[in-house]
Amino acid sequence: MPSKDHLLQARQELRSLVTIPSVSARGEKLSECAHAVRALLAEAGFSTEIHPGEIGPFVVGEIGSGPLTVMVYNHYDVQPEDPLPLWHSPPFELSERDGRWYGRGAADDKGEFVSRLAGWRLFRERQPGPLPFRLIWLVDGEEEIGSPSLEAFLKRRFQGETVDVCWWEYGEIDATGRPIILCGFKGVMAVELRAKTARADLHSSLGAVFDNPLWRLAAATASLRDGSGRVQIEGFYDAVRPLASREKELAGTPPFSFESLVETTGAQRLLNGIDATGFYHAINFEPCMNVNGFSGGYAGEGAKTVLPAEGSVKIDFRLVPDQQPQQIVALLRAHLDRHGFDDIELIVHDANVKPVRSATDHWFVQDAKEVLEAHFGLPAIVQPSSPASGTAHPFVEQLGAEIVGIGITHHGAMLHSPNENIIVDQFETMIECSAALFQKFSEQASRMEYSLQSKAAQASNGERP
Amino acid sequence: MPSKDHLLQARQELRSLVTIPSVSARGEKLSECAHAVRALLAEAGFSTEIHPGEIGPFVVGEIGSGPLTVMVYNHYDVQPEDPLPLWHSPPFELSERDGRWYGRGAADDKGEFVSRLAGWRLFRERQPGPLPFRLIWLVDGEEEIGSPSLEAFLKRRFQGETVDVCWWEYGEIDATGRPIILCGFKGVMAVELRAKTARADLHSSLGAVFDNPLWRLAAATASLRDGSGRVQIEGFYDAVRPLASREKELAGTPPFSFESLVETTGAQRLLNGIDATGFYHAINFEPCMNVNGFSGGYAGEGAKTVLPAEGSVKIDFRLVPDQQPQQIVALLRAHLDRHGFDDIELIVHDANVKPVRSATDHWFVQDAKEVLEAHFGLPAIVQPSSPASGTAHPFVEQLGAEIVGIGITHHGAMLHSPNENIIVDQFETMIECSAALFQKFSEQASRMEYSLQSKAAQASNGERP
Repeated sequence: MPSKDHLLQARQELRSLVTIPSVSARGEKLSECAHAVRALLAEAGFSTEIHPGEIGPFVVGEIGSGPLTVMVYNHYDVQPEDPLPLWHSPPFELSERDGRWYGRGAADDKGEFVSRLAGWRLFRERQPGPLPFRLIWLVDGEEEIGSPSLEAFLKRRFQGETVDVCWWEYGEIDATGRPIILCGFKGVMAVELRAKTARADLHSSLGAVFDNPLWRLAAATASLRDGSGRVQIEGFYDAVRPLASREKELAGTPPFSFESLVETTGAQRLLNGIDATGFYHAINFEPCMNVNGFSGGYAGEGAKTVLPAEGSVKIDFRLVPDQQPQQIVALLRAHLDRHGFDDIELIVHDANVKPVRSATDHWFVQDAKEVLEAHFGLPAIVQPSSPASGTAHPFVEQLGAEIVGIGITHHGAMLHSPNENIIVDQFETMIECSAALFQKFSEQASRMEYSLQSKAAQASNGERP
Repeated sequence: MPSKDHLLQARQELRSLVTIPSVSARGEKLSECAHAVRALLAEAGFSTEIHPGEIGPFVVGEIGSGPLTVMVYNHYDVQPEDPLPLWHSPPFELSERDGRWYGRGAADDKGEFVSRLAGWRLFRERQPGPLPFRLIWLVDGEEEIGSPSLEAFLKRRFQGETVDVCWWEYGEIDATGRPIILCGFKGVMAVELRAKTARADLHSSLGAVFDNPLWRLAAATASLRDGSGRVQIEGFYDAVRPLASREKELAGTPPFSFESLVETTGAQRLLNGIDATGFYHAINFEPCMNVNGFSGGYAGEGAKTVLPAEGSVKIDFRLVPDQQPQQIVALLRAHLDRHGFDDIELIVHDANVKPVRSATDHWFVQDAKEVLEAHFGLPAIVQPSSPASGTAHPFVEQLGAEIVGIGITHHGAMLHSPNENIIVDQFETMIECSAALFQKFSEQASRMEYSLQSKAAQASNGERP
């Protein structure tokens, strides 16, 4: 079937999936969406399974066999649609305007899934018959709520198995249309510090005698890093993995200028010591500590001379390989105790997302770069790590997979926001790219098969392998 | 007229004044209340004047002449009544329950004013005829909003004049019924620190590159004091006046235990270095820095990995003589700049209330102690300074007055809160005390007159004075 028909079919499939409001935060329509995804995979030739998750089921499609195992990871659940009034068209309808498709999940992640699936069909048109590698397609229903049952599910369903490559649920397209291949994700740990010094707020004149919970929180928070952003928790950097020379090289040549980052974000105040050439290194490789929110005492107009009874500070840490969130929690607690803040309560909101980073010189990264450059007509960027996080570590730890993110989440895709969208041209290009990537897997599998056979032949000839 | 009749008349007067909702924050019924106060003073024998203020007029009553000038300072304006649902009886009615009179202004400051006025009438019954000292009764209509026009009014109306004693608008009765004579008030300076680093909130992954406004505020706030509460702003303590030995002695023997302070306040965490004997010294003499409120970023449930665009911290400083709020503002700005926080905006909410402290061995303090002990039947406490603040410095700076606070604001008076009240027995006792205090002024005036005449006689006899 001609390429245009693949696009039309994919649009129809995306339209049906977007219509299902599979909001995992509300546990809504997850089973319905899982079955729709299963039907698409079955129709495309996969053996399929549905397994219960904590909230939404997992869909698994499988096909082929050979020396290479590839996992494609996507998710069918979406973020809530609020605030509804800011949408220019209904969130659970696919609307086309100005060369874009709008709708909740149009990009994250239904659009990514459907473009790949259309690419798979195109690939199978070109290369029917037995698939020379094992392809597992895993579609999660709980990604937007942190994939609470993913780790246990992988352990249960794929115990003892190995995956060579995990094609991550998304990849990016930058503001100039260049594809970004993501080779890693930072980990994240989110905590809250709380201090309470009295039953109720007091007149601030008593601040001459009693300590102030907000000053204590300010001092504890200030102690966690220095003015340059360097974290001051003892042992924080101990587990940081040294960089490979290829990684250093990639991060040393930013694919975009610092000025464009400032323009995009509106941020002004660089951390002390980071300059217009060093920022990309920090984005890729620097763990960091962020204060997310302050609360306590009087926050209205003007002044109120109150000694607050309590307060709280929310903080997250972005972590890099091989920092472990649970261990950083322990280091943080020890830091607080050591610095006289043993009265400050430490509440852990999230310590489950570990950092991952794949080899930037992996064959699939090279293949993907070649394919993307050929179809997008622009240089592809190999980014050692996303500055953001994803629950990728179970694939690495349990299956030994290399994680590689390739996709069409563009610069203005408005993920998790009103008017989420995907650019139709990029979607169409990704169908072609996906077909070519499946082709690359096939070729790699043949090379591996050939190499295995050569070794076997050598062995039977009595030669040393 | 017998004492009971004085009480009945005073109750009737307090009832009428409480009925007038003279809320200065809303600019309500101020003129009406001023005229009611003027009528009471006129009826009690004073020449009266009404002068415009910024919001509410000033009432002045004057009577007598002699070598001694006494000013009685009160105010007729009150705090807003909200939250209304927490009142057990209507705020603008005087309700009697369990030996107390409830109503907005029942204590602060209509109750204090009326008890003194009843005492004045009792005194005049006992000692009619020409008053041997000059008595100025000033009733402010803007005290609850910080007396914005008091300083200018004093300058205008009393230019070049001198006042020996200013009987401050209130005094206290402690939990055990002992009267507290207040000889000073701390100054106060209320500011806000604001930091802004971007146009809008960003994804917290950018915290690897861009500075965090809340960390900057935490670090700036932490830098302002140390763990013991000692302020770290350079020059902050330079203007602190050394203590007189009598002051040290008074503050060294707390009239109540630290345990009772903890019980009253529910506060637990003493500033490092302050112990159960040193707390009273700190209440009286230590300037301090308080964080009043934090805001910025995400303050909801759980975690949100956001890099906030901006935040704010509200802070007050309690000051002691001779620290000047305006100068502390300048020192604070310099401190922020010197410590790398020149990007942090400093907003001054209040830098107009200067600290004052009168001599604790002043003759009027001694007289007041004697009078209060005689009528309350318990030891009176001479407290060198209230831990709180009041706009007393214009009386000191412009008129040279000693400020002394004597009154019946008791432990559970609920000032500025629902169910404000005064204890009827204490109100009645204060009528007697006031009469006796006016008597003491009269005696002091006679002593001064005698001393002046002796000097004049000595001079006319050619003796050296």
